[in-house]
Amino acid sequence: MMRFDGNAAAHEVAEGLKKRVANIKRPLRLAMISVGENSVTRSFMKKKEEFGLVIGVGTRIYSVPESASTTAMRKKIAEVVHIKQNTAVIIQLPLPAHMQPDYLVNAVPAAKDADVLSSRAIGDYTMGRGVIVPPVVGAIEYILAKAECDISGKNIVVLGAGRLVGRPVSLWLTKNQAVYTLIGKETPDMEERLKSADLVISGVGKPGLITAKMLKKGAVVIDAGTAESHGKVVGDVDPIGIENVASLYTPVPGGVGPLTVAMVFRNLVALAEQKK
Amino acid sequence: MMRFDGNAAAHEVAEGLKKRVANIKRPLRLAMISVGENSVTRSFMKKKEEFGLVIGVGTRIYSVPESASTTAMRKKIAEVVHIKQNTAVIIQLPLPAHMQPDYLVNAVPAAKDADVLSSRAIGDYTMGRGVIVPPVVGAIEYILAKAECDISGKNIVVLGAGRLVGRPVSLWLTKNQAVYTLIGKETPDMEERLKSADLVISGVGKPGLITAKMLKKGAVVIDAGTAESHGKVVGDVDPIGIENVASLYTPVPGGVGPLTVAMVFRNLVALAEQKK
Repeated sequence: MMRFDGNAAAHEVAEGLKKRVANIKRPLRLAMISVGENSVTRSFMKKKEEFGLVIGVGTRIYSVPESASTTAMRKKIAEVVHIKQNTAVIIQLPLPAHMQPDYLVNAVPAAKDADVLSSRAIGDYTMGRGVIVPPVVGAIEYILAKAECDISGKNIVVLGAGRLVGRPVSLWLTKNQAVYTLIGKETPDMEERLKSADLVISGVGKPGLITAKMLKKGAVVIDAGTAESHGKVVGDVDPIGIENVASLYTPVPGGVGPLTVAMVFRNLVALAEQKK
Repeated sequence: MMRFDGNAAAHEVAEGLKKRVANIKRPLRLAMISVGENSVTRSFMKKKEEFGLVIGVGTRIYSVPESASTTAMRKKIAEVVHIKQNTAVIIQLPLPAHMQPDYLVNAVPAAKDADVLSSRAIGDYTMGRGVIVPPVVGAIEYILAKAECDISGKNIVVLGAGRLVGRPVSLWLTKNQAVYTLIGKETPDMEERLKSADLVISGVGKPGLITAKMLKKGAVVIDAGTAESHGKVVGDVDPIGIENVASLYTPVPGGVGPLTVAMVFRNLVALAEQKK
């Protein structure tokens, strides 16, 4: 089995981006808008800061109190996107339950939407327009290219229909006219479907959802789920015994995550290049 | 088996729309931009003219020669969308091979995009925003509601990943966290997958692609495919013997088609109501 090293892959992407950043010849910056205090969010932002530092892109965190209204948050986003120094702007999800994420992500104009979450950016991607791809899709495409795994002819199962994984992954697979099954909600025949899958992409955020015995021998298993369990970040896949079943497996942490961060910056650089 | 009567359903939708149109108290018009001469396209436009007449919405056809460049076509679209009398503007697909459809459909602003084909309109729909739905999705939702068929817990198979059926249908199913398989390209195990499907939605445009013997007893079969065969419009499903297998079947013509036309007008009316 190949255990995919997301940190090494992110490093490779960084090498390519460094040169592109140097060519742009003006300072670039990723703005992150974060609501409240959350240790997982803080650690994700820290990883973005570190990646930015490596490739020469600045980062800036804008903090909004947990108690802020959707209107106040929208105002803050409008303010941040209008600052010329912010090349791209991302909103750290998830947001508190009282805020409306669909409304808020649309306050980021497509030209600064490195996370590809606004309607316009999603629509452009769906229709095959624009220079950026949803970060998780960029990460998965990179992993599959490395593994020389072609999606055509594969039996693909996607678990979860969330904003950050399931939805963009289904857009990508539909665009590519793949054959895939999306399991949006729990279904009794999940195990049966998993058992015949050549490629599994999971983004549910439920630790232990998938175990080795549910998988087909030789399956490619991409774990894009993140949850916190006993103070640690874990994925959807229980890693015990996975090496005896999967042909490729992306661990959490250290798999899809670091590469997704790299792809946010690849989007930022592509957006900056468009403005030249 | 219930053979779904799309003309009767379109008539029902028309009754509701008549009242809404009367309430708007200003003339409404659907503009159709058509390229070249094509008997199928002409018959589709005629159906829209007729439906508009029933509910009190005008229609106008703008013809563009087949030889027009993408640039000339884009110019024409910009001209048509700027005419205030055109409440909504649709581009009759398919376009000639030398024109770029993704570029052209984006020339229609979301506020006039009754076909939900522009990036912005698609993105708004994907993110659960806006008042309109892709016409084929509106039609399918209507059919399933009539049949009291709930998609949750169903094994759903979608055939085709095209702009007018497969893509919007997959967006709809993902939004609804359904469990579905999209077959974008031909796959050897299509028959096996069909055999276990409770609900089949097909939009390939390949006559005879699906036959009765491929289906599960009791399946709901929605044929949204259209092709021309020996001078007649036919769907993807071979109707021979279908009544012995399917619990609900939408024939072509007279099934999804007329209802999809009705949904284009429902979108036009919803867009007009928003402007009040």
